[in-house]
Amino acid sequence: MKYTEGGVCAAKGFRASGIHVGVKTSNKDKKDLALIVADGDCAAAAVYTKNIVKAAPLLITQEHLKNGHARAVLVNSGNANACAPDGEANALRSCKAAAAELGLNADDFIVASTGVIGQRLPIEVIENGVAELAAKLTYDGSCDAAAAIMTTDLTMKECAVQTEINGKKITIGGIAKGSGMIHPNMGTMLAFLTTDCAISSDMIKKALVSAANVSFNRISVDGDTSTNDMLSMLANGLAGNDEIVGQGAAYDAFSEALNALCVDLAIKMAADGEGATHLITCCVSGASSTEEAETLAKSVISSTLTKAAIFGADANWGRVLCAMGYSGIDFDPLNVCIAFESDVGRVEVCDKGRGLPFDESIAKVILSEHDVLIDIGLNSGGADCTCWGCDITYDYIKINGDYRT
Amino acid sequence: MKYTEGGVCAAKGFRASGIHVGVKTSNKDKKDLALIVADGDCAAAAVYTKNIVKAAPLLITQEHLKNGHARAVLVNSGNANACAPDGEANALRSCKAAAAELGLNADDFIVASTGVIGQRLPIEVIENGVAELAAKLTYDGSCDAAAAIMTTDLTMKECAVQTEINGKKITIGGIAKGSGMIHPNMGTMLAFLTTDCAISSDMIKKALVSAANVSFNRISVDGDTSTNDMLSMLANGLAGNDEIVGQGAAYDAFSEALNALCVDLAIKMAADGEGATHLITCCVSGASSTEEAETLAKSVISSTLTKAAIFGADANWGRVLCAMGYSGIDFDPLNVCIAFESDVGRVEVCDKGRGLPFDESIAKVILSEHDVLIDIGLNSGGADCTCWGCDITYDYIKINGDYRT
Repeated sequence: MKYTEGGVCAAKGFRASGIHVGVKTSNKDKKDLALIVADGDCAAAAVYTKNIVKAAPLLITQEHLKNGHARAVLVNSGNANACAPDGEANALRSCKAAAAELGLNADDFIVASTGVIGQRLPIEVIENGVAELAAKLTYDGSCDAAAAIMTTDLTMKECAVQTEINGKKITIGGIAKGSGMIHPNMGTMLAFLTTDCAISSDMIKKALVSAANVSFNRISVDGDTSTNDMLSMLANGLAGNDEIVGQGAAYDAFSEALNALCVDLAIKMAADGEGATHLITCCVSGASSTEEAETLAKSVISSTLTKAAIFGADANWGRVLCAMGYSGIDFDPLNVCIAFESDVGRVEVCDKGRGLPFDESIAKVILSEHDVLIDIGLNSGGADCTCWGCDITYDYIKINGDYRT
Repeated sequence: MKYTEGGVCAAKGFRASGIHVGVKTSNKDKKDLALIVADGDCAAAAVYTKNIVKAAPLLITQEHLKNGHARAVLVNSGNANACAPDGEANALRSCKAAAAELGLNADDFIVASTGVIGQRLPIEVIENGVAELAAKLTYDGSCDAAAAIMTTDLTMKECAVQTEINGKKITIGGIAKGSGMIHPNMGTMLAFLTTDCAISSDMIKKALVSAANVSFNRISVDGDTSTNDMLSMLANGLAGNDEIVGQGAAYDAFSEALNALCVDLAIKMAADGEGATHLITCCVSGASSTEEAETLAKSVISSTLTKAAIFGADANWGRVLCAMGYSGIDFDPLNVCIAFESDVGRVEVCDKGRGLPFDESIAKVILSEHDVLIDIGLNSGGADCTCWGCDITYDYIKINGDYRT
């Protein structure tokens, strides 16, 4: 398994594009409509937010993927089309407009939206824009598509990986967006993956659920699980491997590569959390189960007080232990060890649940790095888990105090 | 039932004091040690944080209250004595020092701490300070004690209520502190109550649990459940009513008054959340059960994105519906109505799960008031619940980015 270039167009037979059509009214330089199209029919599957308030495009996509096949992905940013008037009708109209332009069927479209909740989707500007969007499709258009799905994201999120299955090189690539309202629950943020691997839609679904659980479901920006989370994959089979239709070595290789891809995209999301100045990695080891370690790590990276302490480069480890304590996991605080670490050093701050003397100025230097590790040992078993988050900053408040204008 | 003055000294037979002894090293004007002493023996009970990491003084208090009796409360601010070296030994030493000064038994003390986690309690400054603290006890010392338990609180939190039981006027009073790490779970923040009502410790415990559930457990500042939460009550029986030892009209009257007291203190905590500029009240009505309404309301007032929107006076109701959607409660979004309200007006923003057109400038004026109501109708039953929170602001980040110095 190795990383490669090309994002959502890295696998054979996928084109992408992204342009500004006017869903985002404030800035004409910001792309707001993305398209990904496979050269031929694809097995396809998706996982969705567990928020019971689901955006209209998710409901349409669920319908379209019932047959396990799709050809294209259409995504707008700037408007979530959630709790909005005519939501499902407009999501479907956008599929039909793009399908007509490309000579495809509307029900072969995965459709997604991200942006403000509750406002009517300006469907006319999307309908007017699809001709240009289709005309700009290219086999190296991943960047344009990645840019067009950004909202408050500051960085584009692309990744691609390659592995070998039945002697054939297969590639999986994808783009994602994150930033705010990030606390995925089984589904994830918007992430659109493509692969040339031959694999059935059932096995794609299985691999996606599994990958989401070890990647997107292990990050949090603000504890708010979005109405619009979606992780989807199109698989066109052009790699020429024997189709993966069940468990086994081929599935395992595919799944390993997919997990690595999703973890990479998830970490990029956490690092680019709204207003963030730190990527926080929390590793819990010595747990009696992975689930236990995951719940503890996720509680720590979700703690507002811990996030504020990291923003201030303050080694306030009591908040870490406090967040573990209210996580719902039963553990012995008197076995817990905590250290802070970054590229410039490591400082042990808590041993067996009690504070250690440490040099505050050294801790400040360590925590002033962008990437910070909170390393927790439970000393009660052999399982571990890593989760990722970001700090909470003045800019987070600024961005979200007036998001809609 | 009516409100009255005098806080924790409002009931007959309770003295209080609060002074600076030096636990808070940064500012000698800030009181940091409080004492409440009953003239005679009291029935007593307390409820505690459900965080499994519990501060040392809570463990000592649990021991001391096993016999259902106590005489005094000793509280320091500036140091939480949680996860600290010699935590229990130091908590006990502080009780012994105060007990010796007052000629009481150490095990008749309720002891509590609030402040930084993980640092050794400076027990010597407390031991040196108890003589002055005892000398300053007065029957109108509630303000001094209320001031001495504050950390980042900006306002003192006192309240007292009176009701009649068996023809006798009984008074319940209390002081509380809140501000940060506020997301009580069954226990609560530090709140110390006194009453002259004759009531058994078992019935006090029952009444406290019940009161906490409708007051402190319905507020959140930052979603972090503290290691130090404690709600305690001393009852000296001086009101002369027949001792309440079971359910009935007398208990109901007592419980009603206690609930009102605790709701008042809880709202004061929410309004004085760290850095807060708004008190947010969220009322969910038309629910099929109180529990359902409570879970939904608490999810809304805990949502970081909703809190940021209120900070910005932005009527971004999609975040309200989103927070309801991930609360775990099964409801039909298409039945939900949402309005924002304050003293200057009301604006309906969502009807049957879909956005309504509304005047953004009027909404901005309504949400610019300090006290803001988020009024949610589920249209699916007759139960309701109200929870309280506050906005998240630049000052919250500032306070918590560098709390320990």
